[in-house]
Amino acid sequence: MFSSTVSRTSQKLFTRQTRSMITAQAVIFSKHGEPKDVLKTHTYQIDDENIPENSIVLKTLGSPVNPSDINQVQGVYPSQPEKTTELGTDEPSAVGGNEGLFEIIGVGSKISNFKVGDWAIPANVCFGTWRTHAVTTEDQLTKLNNPSDSKALGKKSGLSVNQGATISVNPLTAYLMLTHYVKLAPGKDWFIQNGGNSAVGKYASQIGKLLGFNSISVVRDRDDLDSLINELKNELGATQVITEEQNSSKDFGPTIKGWVKETGGEVKLALNCVGGKNSTGVARKLSNNGLMLTYGGMSMQPVTIPTSLHIFKNITSAGFWVTALLKGNPELKKKTLDQIVSWYENEELLDAPSVETAFDATKDDLAQLYKNGIENSKKGKQLIVY
Amino acid sequence: MFSSTVSRTSQKLFTRQTRSMITAQAVIFSKHGEPKDVLKTHTYQIDDENIPENSIVLKTLGSPVNPSDINQVQGVYPSQPEKTTELGTDEPSAVGGNEGLFEIIGVGSKISNFKVGDWAIPANVCFGTWRTHAVTTEDQLTKLNNPSDSKALGKKSGLSVNQGATISVNPLTAYLMLTHYVKLAPGKDWFIQNGGNSAVGKYASQIGKLLGFNSISVVRDRDDLDSLINELKNELGATQVITEEQNSSKDFGPTIKGWVKETGGEVKLALNCVGGKNSTGVARKLSNNGLMLTYGGMSMQPVTIPTSLHIFKNITSAGFWVTALLKGNPELKKKTLDQIVSWYENEELLDAPSVETAFDATKDDLAQLYKNGIENSKKGKQLIVY
Repeated sequence: MFSSTVSRTSQKLFTRQTRSMITAQAVIFSKHGEPKDVLKTHTYQIDDENIPENSIVLKTLGSPVNPSDINQVQGVYPSQPEKTTELGTDEPSAVGGNEGLFEIIGVGSKISNFKVGDWAIPANVCFGTWRTHAVTTEDQLTKLNNPSDSKALGKKSGLSVNQGATISVNPLTAYLMLTHYVKLAPGKDWFIQNGGNSAVGKYASQIGKLLGFNSISVVRDRDDLDSLINELKNELGATQVITEEQNSSKDFGPTIKGWVKETGGEVKLALNCVGGKNSTGVARKLSNNGLMLTYGGMSMQPVTIPTSLHIFKNITSAGFWVTALLKGNPELKKKTLDQIVSWYENEELLDAPSVETAFDATKDDLAQLYKNGIENSKKGKQLIVY
Repeated sequence: MFSSTVSRTSQKLFTRQTRSMITAQAVIFSKHGEPKDVLKTHTYQIDDENIPENSIVLKTLGSPVNPSDINQVQGVYPSQPEKTTELGTDEPSAVGGNEGLFEIIGVGSKISNFKVGDWAIPANVCFGTWRTHAVTTEDQLTKLNNPSDSKALGKKSGLSVNQGATISVNPLTAYLMLTHYVKLAPGKDWFIQNGGNSAVGKYASQIGKLLGFNSISVVRDRDDLDSLINELKNELGATQVITEEQNSSKDFGPTIKGWVKETGGEVKLALNCVGGKNSTGVARKLSNNGLMLTYGGMSMQPVTIPTSLHIFKNITSAGFWVTALLKGNPELKKKTLDQIVSWYENEELLDAPSVETAFDATKDDLAQLYKNGIENSKKGKQLIVY
């Protein structure tokens, strides 16, 4: 299910640079609403032969559709891009999308930290990644090794477009939840997570394995449960996989206690992206003084903690939002990105697969492509590549 | 409603000491169950003319019935006294009760920190306070000023038996929740609490006022709401009092935001002893990065936190248990007790009233007195005085 995708875009760069002006397209919204109603394509020109001294011209390699991107367009997400007329729109507008991978195709005379051919991702959210090109400044970008860099460094592999374009949210979320709050003792301690079959859940299992942490993944019961358990345990490093029914069952508690006793550790951390009684179940598995981090609420039910867990087991329930954590902490972001990139380059970490759709400027409407992606996003993560 | 009770027991000491043996009584249980079925009176002798060199003989002045005492007898409470035969019982037994006030009536030759006439409370829970007398060691006791000490120190007032006998749980819980976790800026910041009419709630309002913190107390709607609001605001120092309906209402949110804006502070702390949707309501009033501490669950419903509060407002939900917090921290306990005693002595803090029943050894069965107290404990805190 996990795959490594080779960039298909690096050849286009040189033909583009022979033109005096770039015809750029961006998927914008000037008011909030359902994406199908408010997203539209805006076309504008970028003069890449007269780049201002502090500017960088980017070509997009790929950008995904995340649930938070959709909520942002709908106006129900707490972080929002500023709406401006700087792209020459009639009304103040914002460009959709928060994650994406770019290649630098032009730099101003005072740019020293980036050169043409480098890869970069947005340093912050609300960059607007649903577009063919962008003009920005150094401080808005974080450099990633491109395949040539990785090769020069003697790495096994270069990043794929999918890996680079989807690195900022899911892998960072998984890594930071496992390392930033609670110190798990490798070989001994455990974490439990629901959503074990989600993208973050799969990264957490793998990263847990890489760091030596034991894990229990809760998944929904299904017809092909055995094959899912096999994938999660044998390909992705989950130590144990249990069903939601087992998670809710008091009778199953002693089995888990037995696993934990065997390693001489504790269940110090729970990761919750479901809520409701599923969150109660994973919280109950925590050892005394354990922490549950909530990063999603797929069941649409609130986080539910029995009073006695709070009082007598000193369980704490907190939230995790990668955007807020990294906002004031660029060093932490860099350190975390470096670790994920290094695992990718060493082929120790498998990326979550995306459904890739290539943009063809000669026939596609860019906004329609992202609208289709939003429509299909329940079938798997949608990535538009350029 | 709050009262100051003068000790009625200090005169009895000298007649007792002329006897060679004390006939002591204790309310014991050898197995767990409903208190009416398992509590019984055990009578035994204490030789107070041959006190071992490291022992202290205590006479009980008063001990209350707390909900946790009842749960302990039922066997559904996580901290439990050890059952032994040291009182000469046929079966290993434990003495009920965790809170109480004692007067020292005899000391062994090596005791230097306590003298006859001193007042003391148990240093730890599970001491067994439902008894007329006890023999213990220095390390098991924490000294409190008796009325003569307070007078000699020039204080306005001495502790009452009710104040001393009920100091360990409710006032300490209120003080520590307000001071140990979050730093509230006096004059600016706020806390919100449900159970505003509970004993802990009333201590929290008063202590909040003494420390300069603004407070919002949530109470149940009732016929005499105005008189309750008047008591909580004017006698006990609550800044604002709202009903559960207002706590649950989205329309009421802006009113609270207005109060908080006026002081230039934030709602940094919520105290929850109810759970369920009431806990959701108080959690929603917290400012970003706020903390909710749960110390009870009167509604029998779990703590319920909307996912978005965790993720986007970084609200944390944790538990508070005074027993666990103070277990490894005698300095914190001493500092906190000193502060509460000082407020009592300066008549700045009103104690929560108890319904007092005096034990008469010539006609009462001691176990029956505590069983009655348990039976009546929903009508108000029951205190047996000696």
